[in-house]
Amino acid sequence: MADAPKANAIVSQSGGPTGVINASVVGVIEEAKKHPEILNLYGAIHAVNGIVKEDFVDLMKVPDDVLETVASSPSAALGSSRDKPDAAYCQKILDIFKKRNIRYFFYAGGNDSANTCHIINNMAIDNSYDLRAFHIPKTVDNDLLVTDHCPGFGTAAKFVSCALMGDDLDNRALAGVKIDVVMGRHAGFLTAAATLGKQREDDGPHLIYVPERPVSMEKFISDIDAVYKKLGRCVIAVSEGICDEDHKTWAEKLAENTERDAHGNVQLSGTGTLADFLSSQIKEKLKIKRVRADTFGYLQRSFAGLQSPSDVSEARRCGIEAVKFSMTEQSGSIAMKRIGNGKDYAVELFRTDLVNVAEKTKSLPDEYINVQGNGITQAFIDYAMPLTGELPKTEFLGNYPKI
Amino acid sequence: MADAPKANAIVSQSGGPTGVINASVVGVIEEAKKHPEILNLYGAIHAVNGIVKEDFVDLMKVPDDVLETVASSPSAALGSSRDKPDAAYCQKILDIFKKRNIRYFFYAGGNDSANTCHIINNMAIDNSYDLRAFHIPKTVDNDLLVTDHCPGFGTAAKFVSCALMGDDLDNRALAGVKIDVVMGRHAGFLTAAATLGKQREDDGPHLIYVPERPVSMEKFISDIDAVYKKLGRCVIAVSEGICDEDHKTWAEKLAENTERDAHGNVQLSGTGTLADFLSSQIKEKLKIKRVRADTFGYLQRSFAGLQSPSDVSEARRCGIEAVKFSMTEQSGSIAMKRIGNGKDYAVELFRTDLVNVAEKTKSLPDEYINVQGNGITQAFIDYAMPLTGELPKTEFLGNYPKI
Repeated sequence: MADAPKANAIVSQSGGPTGVINASVVGVIEEAKKHPEILNLYGAIHAVNGIVKEDFVDLMKVPDDVLETVASSPSAALGSSRDKPDAAYCQKILDIFKKRNIRYFFYAGGNDSANTCHIINNMAIDNSYDLRAFHIPKTVDNDLLVTDHCPGFGTAAKFVSCALMGDDLDNRALAGVKIDVVMGRHAGFLTAAATLGKQREDDGPHLIYVPERPVSMEKFISDIDAVYKKLGRCVIAVSEGICDEDHKTWAEKLAENTERDAHGNVQLSGTGTLADFLSSQIKEKLKIKRVRADTFGYLQRSFAGLQSPSDVSEARRCGIEAVKFSMTEQSGSIAMKRIGNGKDYAVELFRTDLVNVAEKTKSLPDEYINVQGNGITQAFIDYAMPLTGELPKTEFLGNYPKI
Repeated sequence: MADAPKANAIVSQSGGPTGVINASVVGVIEEAKKHPEILNLYGAIHAVNGIVKEDFVDLMKVPDDVLETVASSPSAALGSSRDKPDAAYCQKILDIFKKRNIRYFFYAGGNDSANTCHIINNMAIDNSYDLRAFHIPKTVDNDLLVTDHCPGFGTAAKFVSCALMGDDLDNRALAGVKIDVVMGRHAGFLTAAATLGKQREDDGPHLIYVPERPVSMEKFISDIDAVYKKLGRCVIAVSEGICDEDHKTWAEKLAENTERDAHGNVQLSGTGTLADFLSSQIKEKLKIKRVRADTFGYLQRSFAGLQSPSDVSEARRCGIEAVKFSMTEQSGSIAMKRIGNGKDYAVELFRTDLVNVAEKTKSLPDEYINVQGNGITQAFIDYAMPLTGELPKTEFLGNYPKI
């Protein structure tokens, strides 16, 4: 391994924004300033798009107080992109890196971004260009391999828990059936987080459906019927990626004119179609009058003023570690290992090869889903609770002694 | 005016829950304990429903620490109801009051609840029954008369502002057209609150439509077109009660099978139909590919852990004042008068006759809406800012010097 080159660095953000991806960029900036090997630090605007257009901001010049506000702001401060670069696109990126003497590449994103990083890294090796390429994990879906969990998940999970806590109390006040559609195309982690705020035996969500467990409309309806008959109300958290028994998503079945992004994914968020369909099925089949459905949409990933403390600090550490590793290693993706849980919760950061993270996804493990496929286990709660941080306590008065 | 009777009191909550209506009930409880005239304090479960079913909890027995948690919890801790009691229903309520020696009636709700309070109060007078009937204002819509603003609005406005702040940054990161549908059937206050988090000239929401200003589809589309051509993106806050030029709501036009509640209102929240319709119109007419729409739904009124500090304290004071006024006055609705603004913001509480609030609604004043009917003025910001409390500061990096 050659010494770390004296050269410029670049950092960028890709894919869906999160509540803490900016903290990772700020981590990169603060650490980059400590290494004389790094000359300028370019911020590429709108990810790979900004690289090929050479649309760069000078991150060394951003005042520290602004950086702290960036770190606490949701969304991607450098802009993002859904472009999936092909070989020609990546070659163009590498050409610009050469032209600008950029030899450190830090890319915060999901598994598609890890793959982009991987392709460019291989290309650099083939070109004998000394590039240090590091992927910084982020995703509200929590579906990256190797790492214990992903920066971005804890904050989104906190939003979803607080939303369900409030919504369940709302449903206690005005009874009926309430469906909440939660993000997570393939992985049920974020939908599972709907369970984290439950404080009492009969608190909702009473039913949780994740993409990992296909469910027929018949079972879905009969599950709701059973809860409604018992409690007189029912709160349900459903993943946007909920599948029918044939493993096809209900959203996909519904979408006559499916809109797909550059990665071939059907648009699931930013539309209320699935929620309204489920709602109408329940009204029709169970003859329940008050059925409501909300789709949480982009609020889950970009809500100002709501961050999980551990999530934001870990996201920042991932940025810092990426720069540190770039001084001694040629490439990698930053990952977290849990070294304590519960009140001793702590993580240790390490690097893994890009190939271990690129283009792969993790599903919600079996042991986190109940046998009926309509709820979440204590094992998940133990796993996820430290990631959201403390949740608000709530109370209502209906259970107090009658007079 | 006779002396305050030594008798039992009752408190209840009606209509859509809010983030601070529980603080009003806790205010009633804490103040009731200070008056020996009040013997027992009944909490009626599910509003008038609970009264006629005699489903009461003993609020004097709820521990203080529980009450504090109730005060910080969203939704209606005693349950709510959308029942609109007719004369026979109100007579039944009065009979139960007599039977239980209840002579203090505290009812937290909107203008329908003020009316229920008014009817029962008149009935008591006709029956020569010494009842003290007090309405405690609450509504996220902020549409009650007399009072400067309504408890519940500030907290919902804080949610909407934080949501739009995050969503606007999300839209900067991944450009396109984004529509956010906000609660407010007839009054545009909550939708107007979408503007409160704007920090920079080109921050969204770029367009805001309230029910008070009918807008044709042509104007709606051409407004968006203009913003999109200028900024390459557009964030729009739309009231669920947005009207066409003929003053009919678009939601109403869309609803083939309209579901109406007991008050004759069409269901607007808990469905994504309007948002999806607007979204499809923009895609079709402007040929913009990335158009997304979210309906904020019940999160706006019931989200755990998010309260405006001034809102929660005012809601509690309204409960306290209702009890105080009941010692010397026969009936009334509690209202707030602003006695200072900006950093000297303060309110003074007073009572007004029930008839002044019952069944009436306030609209967003003209001076709060811009002349084009697609935006909100500084006068509204000055009015609403103290009600949400301090909003988070945000930053992004796209405007920093290029390199």
